[in-house]
Amino acid sequence: MKAYKTLIAAALLVMPLFAQAQPAAGDGQRLTPQVMARMFPAGVVSPEYNDDGSVTFRYQSAEAKEVKLDCQMLPAAAPMYKDANGIWTITVTPGKPDIYPYCFLVDGKQVADPNNMFIFPNEGFKNSLADVRGPVPSVQDIQNVPHGKVTYRYYHSSTCDIDRVMCVYTPAGYDPAGKEKLPVLYLIHGMTDTYETWFKVGHMNNILDNLIAEGKAKRMIVVMPYANPYPEMMLQGKADHYDSMGTDIVTNEIMKDVKPFIEANYKVKTSAADRAVAGFSLGGRQALACGLGNPKSFQYVCAMAPAIFGEEYKTNFSNGTYAPLAEVKKNVKFLWIGTGTSDFLIAASRGLDGYLTEQGVKHTFYTPDGGHTWMNCRDYLTQIAQKLFK
Amino acid sequence: MKAYKTLIAAALLVMPLFAQAQPAAGDGQRLTPQVMARMFPAGVVSPEYNDDGSVTFRYQSAEAKEVKLDCQMLPAAAPMYKDANGIWTITVTPGKPDIYPYCFLVDGKQVADPNNMFIFPNEGFKNSLADVRGPVPSVQDIQNVPHGKVTYRYYHSSTCDIDRVMCVYTPAGYDPAGKEKLPVLYLIHGMTDTYETWFKVGHMNNILDNLIAEGKAKRMIVVMPYANPYPEMMLQGKADHYDSMGTDIVTNEIMKDVKPFIEANYKVKTSAADRAVAGFSLGGRQALACGLGNPKSFQYVCAMAPAIFGEEYKTNFSNGTYAPLAEVKKNVKFLWIGTGTSDFLIAASRGLDGYLTEQGVKHTFYTPDGGHTWMNCRDYLTQIAQKLFK
Repeated sequence: MKAYKTLIAAALLVMPLFAQAQPAAGDGQRLTPQVMARMFPAGVVSPEYNDDGSVTFRYQSAEAKEVKLDCQMLPAAAPMYKDANGIWTITVTPGKPDIYPYCFLVDGKQVADPNNMFIFPNEGFKNSLADVRGPVPSVQDIQNVPHGKVTYRYYHSSTCDIDRVMCVYTPAGYDPAGKEKLPVLYLIHGMTDTYETWFKVGHMNNILDNLIAEGKAKRMIVVMPYANPYPEMMLQGKADHYDSMGTDIVTNEIMKDVKPFIEANYKVKTSAADRAVAGFSLGGRQALACGLGNPKSFQYVCAMAPAIFGEEYKTNFSNGTYAPLAEVKKNVKFLWIGTGTSDFLIAASRGLDGYLTEQGVKHTFYTPDGGHTWMNCRDYLTQIAQKLFK
Repeated sequence: MKAYKTLIAAALLVMPLFAQAQPAAGDGQRLTPQVMARMFPAGVVSPEYNDDGSVTFRYQSAEAKEVKLDCQMLPAAAPMYKDANGIWTITVTPGKPDIYPYCFLVDGKQVADPNNMFIFPNEGFKNSLADVRGPVPSVQDIQNVPHGKVTYRYYHSSTCDIDRVMCVYTPAGYDPAGKEKLPVLYLIHGMTDTYETWFKVGHMNNILDNLIAEGKAKRMIVVMPYANPYPEMMLQGKADHYDSMGTDIVTNEIMKDVKPFIEANYKVKTSAADRAVAGFSLGGRQALACGLGNPKSFQYVCAMAPAIFGEEYKTNFSNGTYAPLAEVKKNVKFLWIGTGTSDFLIAASRGLDGYLTEQGVKHTFYTPDGGHTWMNCRDYLTQIAQKLFK
């Protein structure tokens, strides 16, 4: 793996922030490389991926008293050290190649890496992504295989009375005018995540491209709606409150707006046997509500580290949240729960697993190592993608 | 416009950062709203769009000594004031509704707004976006019109010997199996921007959707390549240097890889009369090199605040950077230069305008108010979109 070393040695020694305010130049000054070098600070290279598998993170601040790296490849935030140029540095080696969210703690405040363009889409924090690749490509890496595409689609939501956006993955060779009809996975993000998180952090397109190319996953369309409609509703003047725990609205949105839009605009199969719903964390809770609540519409229901409170699953089958147990047993062909053994939600998942076993509901319970992370999410998707529609 | 007020009053009073490290919960602890409220800090609402057109920005830090708002709706960074809960606040009213990049200066360090999901895609800084809407929708706002879509396409670059990504806008009703063939605009971002910046900051899809719906712009496909291939090349082990000023590589990439891919995969017209190239800042420099360097391929060439050094345009027509003047005059039907009168690049644009006039090269020189900003970029795109392919 080549390093970013020579960026620093590049001819101009500048990373001009053209589109930011231009305080120094003034009208009429001619732009020359010399003027640019005066106007803009020298670039800092971060992260730098080293040939030995380690990663060097850098952050420039002459003023900060303490800078730490808070990265999910480390058990705890680690101190960085300042050089004579005011650049704080740390080099760490992850246990394995993967994509790790991180930020800097600058005198205690979370700061995304200014020099890393890869950002974790989220409503409530700004993390950067360290994309550590190994000598052999991982399933989430772009590989030399046919590539699908991810499209930002705008649709009218009758549930929310606004025009909204979602991401839609179509596999390589998908032909909207062809004869092939594909099954559909509805894939929901976690709380404070957005409709972009499965794409930008989950690399779901690379995972599907690679598994499909290897013949390990069926060709499918993956639909990623935005489970939280309130940011768009408030921007468009249609809401003055915010309830990001709501699951009813997600189910309504998927059943009344997203699914009809997809089935009207894509060449898809429309039987329950060709429809799956999955989600992570709060999205796992929502996937259970949407899927088990509509078992005649979804034969595949996958909950990744679902946010379940207490033993609510015991009443969910009788209070209308899910369909009655008999109906779920009859219609849901594949019920999958996956939660890492270090996940803070593992106890709730174990409770649900136990209850389903007790009630004779056929299901899979997958408990790998790891916590409530997107490293685990990519693994969950890799697992279920190989099971769906088979 | 409704405000985010009641987010704070929402039932849970939390914005759980599920996907971050979970230090406090530990294995086996059951997740309840009470546990969540202990584990995660209360949400801060920022930005809040007020009914009177003002915007309130908030940043939580009990420890910071000074927090300022650095926002392009203000002439200079403005101080924020801390309340008893450690929340720093400022309310400002922009001169007009628009999308304004901003960050917080926390004890002098740039920090993106943690509570704003809209981020400026960039290699070198992390700004948030304040999307200020007026009582009448602006051209960059999503409106109740048919919506096109933006697709992330992966293609093989022979120029760079890697698989790369670009964004492609197709207008509403575009049918890859239909008879309609569309003209194509190749649209390049500025220095340190990415292939996403025209989409996420420029709102180019809304601008095109709205102008097309009004009959003011022709239906067209807009292709947004990533002008700087080095980040992808280095991640894939195919480069160990970085030259973000390079224009040859962009022209080669567009001519040898992007254009052939688009013409093979979309229903597009393939004459020079149906092909345009445009770009902002460094991308304006690149658009001039690509378009004036290949005048038999592009009848439309648009440079938005182009990064021109000194009087290089005088030699560019004779040193091979551009085609000879006679060839440009004969083939380029529409040459457009637009630069704000407060832009630090205005002098270079005026020089180019004067030289073109002197040499008898027909062109348009557009000089609105404003500086080297994406507020101006959206205006430039709105201007040229109404002229192209007519």
